[in-house]
Amino acid sequence: MNRITDLFGIKYPVVQGGMIWCSGWKLASAVSNAGGLGLIGAGSMTPELLAEHIDKCFDATGKPFGVNLPLLYKRTEEQIDVILKKGVKIVFTSAGNPKKYTPYLKENGIKVVHVVANKKFALKAVEAGVDAIVAEGFEAGGHNGYEELTTFVLLQLLNNAVDIPVIAAGGIATGQAVFASMALGAEGVQIGSLFAASEESSAHENFKNKIVDAGENSTHLVLKKLVPVRLLENGFYEKIKMAEEEGFSKEELANILGKGRAKKGMFEGDIEDGELEIGQVASIIDEIKPVSEIMKKLVDEFNETAKKMRTVDLWR
Amino acid sequence: MNRITDLFGIKYPVVQGGMIWCSGWKLASAVSNAGGLGLIGAGSMTPELLAEHIDKCFDATGKPFGVNLPLLYKRTEEQIDVILKKGVKIVFTSAGNPKKYTPYLKENGIKVVHVVANKKFALKAVEAGVDAIVAEGFEAGGHNGYEELTTFVLLQLLNNAVDIPVIAAGGIATGQAVFASMALGAEGVQIGSLFAASEESSAHENFKNKIVDAGENSTHLVLKKLVPVRLLENGFYEKIKMAEEEGFSKEELANILGKGRAKKGMFEGDIEDGELEIGQVASIIDEIKPVSEIMKKLVDEFNETAKKMRTVDLWR
Repeated sequence: MNRITDLFGIKYPVVQGGMIWCSGWKLASAVSNAGGLGLIGAGSMTPELLAEHIDKCFDATGKPFGVNLPLLYKRTEEQIDVILKKGVKIVFTSAGNPKKYTPYLKENGIKVVHVVANKKFALKAVEAGVDAIVAEGFEAGGHNGYEELTTFVLLQLLNNAVDIPVIAAGGIATGQAVFASMALGAEGVQIGSLFAASEESSAHENFKNKIVDAGENSTHLVLKKLVPVRLLENGFYEKIKMAEEEGFSKEELANILGKGRAKKGMFEGDIEDGELEIGQVASIIDEIKPVSEIMKKLVDEFNETAKKMRTVDLWR
Repeated sequence: MNRITDLFGIKYPVVQGGMIWCSGWKLASAVSNAGGLGLIGAGSMTPELLAEHIDKCFDATGKPFGVNLPLLYKRTEEQIDVILKKGVKIVFTSAGNPKKYTPYLKENGIKVVHVVANKKFALKAVEAGVDAIVAEGFEAGGHNGYEELTTFVLLQLLNNAVDIPVIAAGGIATGQAVFASMALGAEGVQIGSLFAASEESSAHENFKNKIVDAGENSTHLVLKKLVPVRLLENGFYEKIKMAEEEGFSKEELANILGKGRAKKGMFEGDIEDGELEIGQVASIIDEIKPVSEIMKKLVDEFNETAKKMRTVDLWR
C-alpha cells in the first residue's frame, strides 16, 4: 500500500503505540492480528518479563510485531539482548539519543523507528540511520516534548523535510484523523490512547473506565520542570497542579511524584493517587472495545473520508 | 463551493483572522480581493478608528469583508453601532458570551460567527443562533483556551456534533493543512499568523522579521493565570517565564504585563520588551509576502493535496 505497510509487512499503516502498563503481548498480538503493527511496551518491563511477553506474542500471532524501547532505563542493553535473541525484527526507540543503538540494531537486521517531537530531532534520527520516524504532537498522552508542537504543526514542519516515511502520533482517534495525517504528509499513524482503553490492554479496569468518562478538559501536560507528561485529572494531578502554581522546584516536584506512581494508577487501578497517562483524545473515547472493533471502525472511517474527499472541488 | 463560501459570498473558504495591531483595512481588503474573507480586527481600535477602517475597506474592495469583535472591551456597543451604520454584513465575535449580542446582530441582517476553543462553548454558540463557528486550537497565536485542545483533537470532537459549518483555526499555514482540516469535518479555515507576516499587515516590520526568523521552539503559551496567550520568545517572555516558574500570583503577573504591551511590540516594533502574539506556525513562515502570493500558494497546495489524496487506496 505504501512505504509503511511495506516496511513492516502489515495490511494497514496503523501502529499501536508502546505504552507502559498497557501494551503487553495481549494488546500487541491483537493489533497485529487485526492488520496493524502491535508493539510490546518494554518501558515497564524487566528484561525477563520482556522475554516472556515476546514468547507469548509469537504464540498469539504469526503477523509482524515489534517492541517499543525507551532509551532511558539502566537495563536497556539487556533488553536489546532479549529482543535479538528472541528474533523480534522491529524496534521503536524513544526518549534518548537514536545514534547510540540504531547502528547495532540495524546490523542485526532490525527495522528501527525513532519517536521525535520536533524537526531538529527528526533530522538527527535520519542521520542515525533509522528507517522511519514517529512524529508525536503535544496532544499525545504520557511523556511529551518540551516544544509543545501540535501534531498539525509538526507534520507541516516535517512535510518534505525528511526522505524517510513519517508516522503521525498524538490526537489520532478516528479514521478522519488518519486520513488528515496522510494529507499532511504522513504515511502511517501511531495510536496510543484508543488502544490503552481496549479490552486487550493490560491497563486496570478502573483506569479504562476513567478514560471513557473523561471530558474535553480532563487531561493536562504537567511536570514540565522534570519531563513533561500528559495525564488525567485526579487527586495526584491536583497536588502537582498546586505545587506548580506555587513555583515548587524540580526536586520538590520529583518528591511529590515519587516512585512507581504510573504503575499504581494505570496497572493497580488507584485512580485517585496514581499517575494516569493518556492523550487529549480520551475525550473522544466513550467505550471499551476489543481491538478488532477499533480497527474495523478506523478502516470504515478512513474509507468514508477518502471517498468524501475525492468529491471535493479543486479551487480555481 | 460549500456552506462557508455560500454564507459569505466568497471564492475560497479562507478567512483571515482578525488580529490586534495586524489587521486593518489594508490587510482585510487584500484578502477579500484575493478571494478569501478579510476581517478588520476591532480589538485594537476605538469606535472612531474602526469607522475609518471600514470606510477605507469599502473603498479598497467591492468584495465581502467583515469585522472581528472581541466582546471584552468597554466600548463594544459603540463598535456595534459603527458596524451597523457603516453597513458591514459579517461579524466574527470572540472572547465573551455569544448570547449577548448575536440576536441583535442577526435582527439587523448580520451574519454572525463566534470563535470557540472547546465543544462546550461550540454548543453554546449554536444555541445563541450563530451562523458558523471558528474552532481554534492550542497552536493558535494570541489569546487561547484554557483546555489547550489542539486543532486536531478539537475538530474530531466537533465532527458531527454541530449542524452549522465549522471553520478550523490554529496551526494552519499550508494548503495541506486546509485540506486536512476539511477531512476532519471543517468547511473553511481561519488563518492568522501567515497574514500577520504579510506585506499588507499593519504589524511593525521588526515584528514581521522576527516571525520569519522564528524556529520551532520560539512560541509559548503563557499567562495562564490571567488569560492564556501564545507569543514569541523575547525579553518580555523571559520575565514572564521566570515569574511563572517562581509561582507569581495573578496580580503580580498582571503588573509585569502592564498596559499597552502588545501595541508596543506588534505595532511600535519594540521586539524586546513588547508582547508579540503569534502562532506555532511562525516556525513555518520564512518570508514576508503580499497577500495575493500567500493565497495563490494556499490554492496551489490545496489542489496538489486534493489530487494526491484522490489516488490513495481504500483500505480493504
